[in-house]
Amino acid sequence: MRLGIDLGGTNIAYGVVTDDGKMVRSEQEALTSVLFSDVVAVICQIYQTFSTIYDLKVVGLGVPGIVADARGDDVTCVNLAWHNVALYSALKRHIKCRLAIANDANCACLGEFLFGSLTGQSNAALLTLGTGVGSGLIVNGQLLSGRNGAAELGHMIIADDGWRCNCGNTGCLETFASAGALKRYYNYLSDRSVSSAEQVFECFRQSDQAAIETVNWFCEHLAVAIVNLYNTFAPTVISLSGGVSKSFDDFSGPLVTAVARRRLHKNMPYGKIVRATLNEQSAVSGAAFLLDYKELLC
Amino acid sequence: MRLGIDLGGTNIAYGVVTDDGKMVRSEQEALTSVLFSDVVAVICQIYQTFSTIYDLKVVGLGVPGIVADARGDDVTCVNLAWHNVALYSALKRHIKCRLAIANDANCACLGEFLFGSLTGQSNAALLTLGTGVGSGLIVNGQLLSGRNGAAELGHMIIADDGWRCNCGNTGCLETFASAGALKRYYNYLSDRSVSSAEQVFECFRQSDQAAIETVNWFCEHLAVAIVNLYNTFAPTVISLSGGVSKSFDDFSGPLVTAVARRRLHKNMPYGKIVRATLNEQSAVSGAAFLLDYKELLC
Repeated sequence: MRLGIDLGGTNIAYGVVTDDGKMVRSEQEALTSVLFSDVVAVICQIYQTFSTIYDLKVVGLGVPGIVADARGDDVTCVNLAWHNVALYSALKRHIKCRLAIANDANCACLGEFLFGSLTGQSNAALLTLGTGVGSGLIVNGQLLSGRNGAAELGHMIIADDGWRCNCGNTGCLETFASAGALKRYYNYLSDRSVSSAEQVFECFRQSDQAAIETVNWFCEHLAVAIVNLYNTFAPTVISLSGGVSKSFDDFSGPLVTAVARRRLHKNMPYGKIVRATLNEQSAVSGAAFLLDYKELLC
Repeated sequence: MRLGIDLGGTNIAYGVVTDDGKMVRSEQEALTSVLFSDVVAVICQIYQTFSTIYDLKVVGLGVPGIVADARGDDVTCVNLAWHNVALYSALKRHIKCRLAIANDANCACLGEFLFGSLTGQSNAALLTLGTGVGSGLIVNGQLLSGRNGAAELGHMIIADDGWRCNCGNTGCLETFASAGALKRYYNYLSDRSVSSAEQVFECFRQSDQAAIETVNWFCEHLAVAIVNLYNTFAPTVISLSGGVSKSFDDFSGPLVTAVARRRLHKNMPYGKIVRATLNEQSAVSGAAFLLDYKELLC
């Protein structure tokens, strides 16, 4: 059995997965603290609990940040205020089986590639549209390693300016296509105020003019990023996950139209845009199988 | 011996290359017509001439457009007004040895990968800054096929608007980083008028204010594309070729500064930006070896 863990900024999700990818148990809980030592304690507690019930051979962990070394001892998660922490070593004091650590969106991409919307694709992309925008890429049938700073498509620059991104640049995809961006742009346009991207889509379904403009703005910018991805390595499937993707049915029409208008080769086959099929469990599933694909990640 | 041919919009360059990559003879000539039948006749004439002198086993051809099928019988070169032409079949009536056809920038990338600035790299990019902007990518040690519409980085959209690109979009890298873009922007800013990008750099060296602004504008936009490439697949070398790259020494300083300002991970190793080393012969050399790497291109 395998334990997959997906560490987020406010929650931690985890599940026990069989060797053929079946999730036999999955849970999530809120994090009361993101202090490094507290999160390490939470992860070790989850491991202890499940290792008494299941014969765990492998633990995989996705983290919301950069894993700069092969093992996971140089981890930086800006949203958790972790800088260059030795996560692998801290966990290995308590976790007695094999352990692998990678970026959460890379884990989600691996999960979708093995069991979800990206199975069988040679070139494909996953974009996670959540608090921020993460990504994972399959190129030539392999998960591209994010270890060296690749697959950070949330920071693809697609406009001259706009709101400043957490990374310091302006024009990043994340400032247009994340849940926070949708909420902020709607509140900027409207005299109403919403507290989530879901509410923007609720207003959109009620034909609220500011919501229509916001969703179009989101689709136009996401379309630019998708066309840029296509012009780079021609993914055959582009899968969207994360909180914003729950409203896929609302925005997929205008998104596909915006992509069609900007695509370079009008008469060549083009990548399909789909919603991820494993939803919140993409990263947990992918993390559980990280060690099998570790050589591809290095 | 191998014959490599690089077909451009106004010139055709070619060379005879040994099996270990030594160029024993190279020439180029102006095209008097870009009519499909005329160009086929020119290529066949070049082949005839050299095949009487050298024992040619292989002919490789780079074309300024899209080779949509594996063989080269669905070729579209907008700048030559060729649409879906059966180039391979037309040439094979006269060329008696093995023949391969691919996009010219992909050929140039292969040439630089085998013999020039990209040797030994697992992840690398070539950008050809000429009349337009072309590109080739090495990912996981393999040349990425441009057959399906990949590696068209001249059409990476990096700004909200700007001059309209030949492809119909606005904001394409090509509208900022090609020779034509440099010339056009300078003439827009200045009360003088230049007829080439080289003249813009001549004015730049004379501290002409409009030329300084033009070169900065070029560097800022090219830097965005380079950072986007880095955030996608982390190339360790980004090589620049084409006419504009002749002024590399003039613009490399501001370009590297602009990249440093926008890069995502300030304390991680970053790709080097270099000038291509084979210059005009990148594509001829790469074309001559296309058949050896054909399986990677399909």
